[in-house]
Amino acid sequence: MRASGMEGGKPIIGVFDSGFGGLTVLRALMRRFPEADFAFIGDTARLPYGSKSRRTIARYAAQSAQFLVREQGAQFLVIACNTASALALDAIQDAVPEVPVLGVIEPGASAARGASRTGDVLVIATDATVHSHAYSAACRGLGLRALEKACPLLVPLVEEGWTDHPVTAEVIRIYLAELLAEAAAEGLKPDALVLGCTHYPLLRPLMERAVPAGMKVIDSADAAAEVAMRLFPEGQSPPVAPDPAAGPVPGTGLVPAAERDTETRERVRCFATDSVEKFERLGSRFLGQPVGEVELVDLGG
Amino acid sequence: MRASGMEGGKPIIGVFDSGFGGLTVLRALMRRFPEADFAFIGDTARLPYGSKSRRTIARYAAQSAQFLVREQGAQFLVIACNTASALALDAIQDAVPEVPVLGVIEPGASAARGASRTGDVLVIATDATVHSHAYSAACRGLGLRALEKACPLLVPLVEEGWTDHPVTAEVIRIYLAELLAEAAAEGLKPDALVLGCTHYPLLRPLMERAVPAGMKVIDSADAAAEVAMRLFPEGQSPPVAPDPAAGPVPGTGLVPAAERDTETRERVRCFATDSVEKFERLGSRFLGQPVGEVELVDLGG
Repeated sequence: MRASGMEGGKPIIGVFDSGFGGLTVLRALMRRFPEADFAFIGDTARLPYGSKSRRTIARYAAQSAQFLVREQGAQFLVIACNTASALALDAIQDAVPEVPVLGVIEPGASAARGASRTGDVLVIATDATVHSHAYSAACRGLGLRALEKACPLLVPLVEEGWTDHPVTAEVIRIYLAELLAEAAAEGLKPDALVLGCTHYPLLRPLMERAVPAGMKVIDSADAAAEVAMRLFPEGQSPPVAPDPAAGPVPGTGLVPAAERDTETRERVRCFATDSVEKFERLGSRFLGQPVGEVELVDLGG
Repeated sequence: MRASGMEGGKPIIGVFDSGFGGLTVLRALMRRFPEADFAFIGDTARLPYGSKSRRTIARYAAQSAQFLVREQGAQFLVIACNTASALALDAIQDAVPEVPVLGVIEPGASAARGASRTGDVLVIATDATVHSHAYSAACRGLGLRALEKACPLLVPLVEEGWTDHPVTAEVIRIYLAELLAEAAAEGLKPDALVLGCTHYPLLRPLMERAVPAGMKVIDSADAAAEVAMRLFPEGQSPPVAPDPAAGPVPGTGLVPAAERDTETRERVRCFATDSVEKFERLGSRFLGQPVGEVELVDLGG
């Protein structure tokens, strides 16, 4: 265990998810905070949060948050779980009042506002996130009209590894056609699609091909990392990394690909509450590089 | 709470699943035990069991089993959860030594033995069930050679309601083609396909169309109900119901469709540990009739 979050002067950012999908958020954060260390926990013993009540989710997420802050020394927390962000962000902040806590919903909505000209946006997410209507509410708060749709097949398709498969393309086509028809029926003219689930960044290429011309695809994971850069406590803020889409740039602190494996293990400690095997097997696809060893931790319950 | 399992002289059969998929097993049991009452519990707060360790599954399943036996008065327990049957049947039996406990794996294997002439069978199931190799072991114990395949997309496709959808037909075609190619490579000549997941009976029509000519489709839910009839404690054994495939027959005690809703509520009490909404919304498809009110119960943890 780390005794202090300031060991070696490096900030530690804690990232929490119910599973390992939030590794896409960690990936985006690692690119933007090249000097930071990270502690990631996936509450795999109790996933999916989506089928659980708000009360249960709040209790579980609070335990993980306290583990990251009080046992791993995180000075800043990113809730890389749409369900927990939607239903339990206040409860999590109450559980760790000593650090700032950032969810993924507000950043996603904020990025949609930046991308949309019509003010009408589409949001696709899991059943639980859609039922919470958290994206709708966040978008409405920013003057946007949002139409949400649950796409429950997309997570299992990603986990099956069918991220570039005709079946997945067909499922996306069906979901988008239904959503666009509903938007038209309500008189909306959407020009942005928010990927409101941490698994969906892996489907971004298929999504880009499936959306109508001119529609922008917004990635909540990336949006959260962007906002994190602005919110990170002053004095601990590391140098700004370049746009990840542009690739590593000399002199920025981003390490060459060949050194990344070692770099990951040094910079990131990954924890899971159960089911380390699946985390280690699938996680690398989400993180974009090997996740290294995943440590099992018992949060009780 | 029922004070006694023998109230009104009717036997009570307890059915346990991690979710509501086990309602397909309950459905098969209700048809074969027209005089029995039933208590069903879905441990929805902690599903899916498939991603959890054996130790965790055993602890959770034991709590549900004790609830069914000691609080609902069940005199006989059917574990309608392949994962729990595969990993924790002994632990469940130890937790409720006072009643007989039946899983779904052995009955499925036994039915496969009855159906296969070549002695080679295919088993499709969830990732967790396949990784347990419980069907392989049960089949081997009966002199069969079994080849197993995880089909993780089928549960979400069923839950999406796409039980008669071209995408589902295509996914089944892909999975079966992979499995048949593997069987051929190993020199097997399979002539039976075991549906080793409680969700799969809803895909039976698509499966029947997808398998090669002459291959029999075995439904573990139905097989478990069949075995239950033979194992039910003597003296409490209700009259044998007709083959459910033949439909209701006058004078058998099976009620007309119009009266079924009331009948379900009288004969079955359904409990869930969380997420009653999804249980009530989707459960009727699995039970083949309305599930009625689902009661929330807290097993702790």
